Amino acid sequence: MSDGKGLQGVAVADTALSRVRGDIGELIIRGYQIADLGANVTYEEAVYLLWYGELPTPEQLAHFREKLVAQRPIPAALLALMAQFPHTAHPMAVLRSTVSLLSFYDAAADDITLDEARAKAVRLVAQFPTLVAAWERIRQGKPVLDPRPDLDHAANFLYMLSGDTPNEDAVKALDAYLVLLIDHDFNASTFSARVTTGTNADLYSAITTALGTLKGPAHGGANQKAMEQFLAAAATGDVAQWYNDFRDAGNRVMGIGHREYKVEDPRARVLRPLAENVARSSGNGYWYEIAAQIEQLTRQDDYFVSRNLYANVDYYSAVVLYMLNIPVDQFTCIFALSRIAGWTGHVLEQLANNRLIRPQANYVGPTGRVIRTEE
Amino acid sequence: MSDGKGLQGVAVADTALSRVRGDIGELIIRGYQIADLGANVTYEEAVYLLWYGELPTPEQLAHFREKLVAQRPIPAALLALMAQFPHTAHPMAVLRSTVSLLSFYDAAADDITLDEARAKAVRLVAQFPTLVAAWERIRQGKPVLDPRPDLDHAANFLYMLSGDTPNEDAVKALDAYLVLLIDHDFNASTFSARVTTGTNADLYSAITTALGTLKGPAHGGANQKAMEQFLAAAATGDVAQWYNDFRDAGNRVMGIGHREYKVEDPRARVLRPLAENVARSSGNGYWYEIAAQIEQLTRQDDYFVSRNLYANVDYYSAVVLYMLNIPVDQFTCIFALSRIAGWTGHVLEQLANNRLIRPQANYVGPTGRVIRTEE
Repeated sequence: MSDGKGLQGVAVADTALSRVRGDIGELIIRGYQIADLGANVTYEEAVYLLWYGELPTPEQLAHFREKLVAQRPIPAALLALMAQFPHTAHPMAVLRSTVSLLSFYDAAADDITLDEARAKAVRLVAQFPTLVAAWERIRQGKPVLDPRPDLDHAANFLYMLSGDTPNEDAVKALDAYLVLLIDHDFNASTFSARVTTGTNADLYSAITTALGTLKGPAHGGANQKAMEQFLAAAATGDVAQWYNDFRDAGNRVMGIGHREYKVEDPRARVLRPLAENVARSSGNGYWYEIAAQIEQLTRQDDYFVSRNLYANVDYYSAVVLYMLNIPVDQFTCIFALSRIAGWTGHVLEQLANNRLIRPQANYVGPTGRVIRTEE
Repeated sequence: MSDGKGLQGVAVADTALSRVRGDIGELIIRGYQIADLGANVTYEEAVYLLWYGELPTPEQLAHFREKLVAQRPIPAALLALMAQFPHTAHPMAVLRSTVSLLSFYDAAADDITLDEARAKAVRLVAQFPTLVAAWERIRQGKPVLDPRPDLDHAANFLYMLSGDTPNEDAVKALDAYLVLLIDHDFNASTFSARVTTGTNADLYSAITTALGTLKGPAHGGANQKAMEQFLAAAATGDVAQWYNDFRDAGNRVMGIGHREYKVEDPRARVLRPLAENVARSSGNGYWYEIAAQIEQLTRQDDYFVSRNLYANVDYYSAVVLYMLNIPVDQFTCIFALSRIAGWTGHVLEQLANNRLIRPQANYVGPTGRVIRTEE
């Protein structure tokens, strides 16, 4: 018999990167509580911590930042291909495709030695914002902007997206978001990347896999779906009525509930006030209030209460990203901008002690059949 | 503690498609022994059996064939992009990228209802040979050929690759190869596609994942590696000496050993005489003999004998594909031409009873750390 539970509770391998404790609502990254990191470090510092196990000294951080900045540009030949993509393509399908295509321009694409894999990890973290911003500019018919070396990771992304130097509040909000989503032990996209790596496949294959898995609405795709429901609720003018109709039609609320957490997601606890602040400071407190009102309605809804389904990381993320003027169908790409550090960290950990991940199936079909030949 | 064994022996979910019994060297597809199918059905019949559970009647087969033939062409816009890919790109990286890009030209790319997923499965099986042959022609600087509706699946692929109507022996050999590799329960690429599908991600994401996972040399990439070692052995002129040097340098023989089989792989048992026949009939018995000689050497090598490591599916596949004049770095794509039916079959099975596949990790890092702030 199979467990039928999608490996829930089955520990597949060791990791030193992060630990989720769903029973008490705890996420630690290399020993630090996620809220501590969200409040106190930049994304660059968090990536360094995740990969190397310690927060960087100022000198280490300066050196690491320099490496990232140098790797931000993407090949001109890839940009030329992107310019020919149909503008209707979903940004996550574009990011999945462009990461796959990036391998063409890396002469060492298939090299999975640890040194080479580490170099690729730096490059992918550095290039993800460039890829995402480039596609947004291309589909809007605007010129693609070169990265700005004077700006940090989050600020440079917002600049490449809009063409304007972003204000400090926006940079802080995006930076905190990127820190909060950096890793989450063996979530589905990370696990799938480890399965791909288990065959000694190259890093582009592993990250393409992770992007495809994240894209699903039961994973990273949920932040887009959460925002779409806030927009739909707002459009009716009566959130309570919208909620009743929505639930009566048999819908689940996107962004509520998590496979691992039986209490509140520790990231939601940080993202809720972050969403409130960024919404109020940008004069759009309205969107925070709609999200908060729908959350309250789920807390009075027996379906969610009896199953311990609370707001997850995607719920208030949606408000934060909307306040940053990020197009709704780009939300999952912003999740990926953060998680690429976790994916590559896990791929490196897998490579350092690699083993094929290959389970078995429980066969429930017929046996003993023989083809009838006319003899 | 994690099991540390990459889920070996852990049954993750039910399947009615195929069953591997590694202890007795058995593979059944919907109840039929793989050797029975390899000897008695075409690839089109095998796909029909795998997806629908029964071998087709002549009328059902004719209808199914018609559907496949109609779906063979790929979008002209995609071909235009492919024409700009650097010719150095690995064919598996190209196939992974082009499947990802195909989603741009499908207005229902994200639709995972069963009817739509079934339609996409037919299309992907039909289009895979077109994608692979197109890239081979493009990188050789030759015009891409349209599929020929009068030819069956295997024959049409060989035609699109070479531009010549293939001879009957070649068609039969490729067709048997495609049948033999069609499915293999929860192998790593199939499992990874199911993990991607578990988040309700679209089919293009799932198949892109499968291709990336297959690409690894510990999975589908082994057939290319096996042929490269036969070529290296032949180049020395002394296979026995090559073997000793190769093993003394600490190398494992590619294509020998399988995670599941503790006795001979049932597909190798069929592929060995197939390789011998196709090699001898094409006047190149030499390549079969080199493979057979190296296999014999492994049977006298304590490393392989004591661990029950036998020739696997990739070992004699390499000889078969080489005899069909398929470029060595395309071998893994030919594996994919077959396995796309298995991947889509498993994705459909996963979608019909979907559940997130999300294991846990065993955390081995530090705990209780707090960021020191200068207060």
